[in-house]
Amino acid sequence: MTPTGAKTNHHRELEDALTYLPRKHVLQYRRGEVIYDQEKPSTGISLVIRGRVKVCTNLENGSQVVIGIYGNDQFFGESGLTGASAHAEKATTLEPTTLMSWSTAEIEEHIEHQPKLGLALIQMVVNRCLDFEDRLQSLALDKTPGRIALSLVRFSEKMGAHGEDGAVKIPPLTHQLISDYVGTSREIVTFQMNQLRQQGYIRYSRKSIEVYADALRERLRQNAMNGGQ
Amino acid sequence: MTPTGAKTNHHRELEDALTYLPRKHVLQYRRGEVIYDQEKPSTGISLVIRGRVKVCTNLENGSQVVIGIYGNDQFFGESGLTGASAHAEKATTLEPTTLMSWSTAEIEEHIEHQPKLGLALIQMVVNRCLDFEDRLQSLALDKTPGRIALSLVRFSEKMGAHGEDGAVKIPPLTHQLISDYVGTSREIVTFQMNQLRQQGYIRYSRKSIEVYADALRERLRQNAMNGGQ
Repeated sequence: MTPTGAKTNHHRELEDALTYLPRKHVLQYRRGEVIYDQEKPSTGISLVIRGRVKVCTNLENGSQVVIGIYGNDQFFGESGLTGASAHAEKATTLEPTTLMSWSTAEIEEHIEHQPKLGLALIQMVVNRCLDFEDRLQSLALDKTPGRIALSLVRFSEKMGAHGEDGAVKIPPLTHQLISDYVGTSREIVTFQMNQLRQQGYIRYSRKSIEVYADALRERLRQNAMNGGQ
Repeated sequence: MTPTGAKTNHHRELEDALTYLPRKHVLQYRRGEVIYDQEKPSTGISLVIRGRVKVCTNLENGSQVVIGIYGNDQFFGESGLTGASAHAEKATTLEPTTLMSWSTAEIEEHIEHQPKLGLALIQMVVNRCLDFEDRLQSLALDKTPGRIALSLVRFSEKMGAHGEDGAVKIPPLTHQLISDYVGTSREIVTFQMNQLRQQGYIRYSRKSIEVYADALRERLRQNAMNGGQ
């Protein structure tokens, strides 16, 4: 899958940061395997070579919020770079996944030899902050339909492959996963996804969701002008 | 004001990043001045020497979400380090404020000479991401009273000064600002702040809000165990 979304930041992340990061041996994970969690937290930063990883926070009462879904050529686990272990993050593979990981000490050493890696990683993490700001804003101001539509637009930008008729193909995402991402119930996601399908904004195929991202983006823009949806 | 919250990350931010950042001449701003906005975006990173800065996103329809409030010894404006100008962030002073600012090119040059600055800034931005994750989780799962209580706990950790009877003093925050921070209406914030005051969790004085942060944290923990409030 080639990421080709109009606003993909991770393409630049890859070019900038990976230019200066030495290759490492790859780690293989089966589908559904835990990469790190609160008991065994991340101790550095990882890169998805192939596959998909879900990072979420887990609460004592069992509910979870999906922090991010990271695909080919995307970094995750950067919480490990702070050395703070109190953070309740959990990373699990959504499919068979191959990773490279660097410890905080390795990153520190590589920055000594390749100072440009420092700024490249700062920029990568700042871009992640900007994504979180977008999501904060959407959670604070948008009603659920708008949040679901925006999440589909974002997924298409980050993990989409452009199809022939303007649709962007993204890997299948369960309604439960989307609901844990936008902070609503699975039932509401199912209802809204059906609405979006009937209105022609998305199409399901056997192996992917096709998102008419430009049309959906225009709809979100219209709704924002009219006071939010 | 000395920041002494139990979980303050910015104390470490300061020690780590400022050790390696050369002092610069300071910039003075009056209360309510715009430091940067979408028309004239941040071009690097800034440090609050004295004062308080509000960073928010502005929507076309006039609504806003407060991304953060940054006080003495805290960094902000790091969105400028990516060089992306499309981001609709706006920073305004909440009181007369003194800053130091470094451009992206300066940061890059300093990392060349002081590679440890690279990791220090990465850690600072990652800590900011972890704050955003906390807020995302709270917005997705908590009802408004819980979100307001959590925001007071976080403010007390980040900009609080410990008083004599266990209360943490934070600078005054308007109810409008708190409502733009937690994503609700000013009226609801006013109602909830009155509730918290009657229940003894907060106290208003002329120049500050006193937050009984430990008691409020314990209440949030209890609510989380019982399925979220």
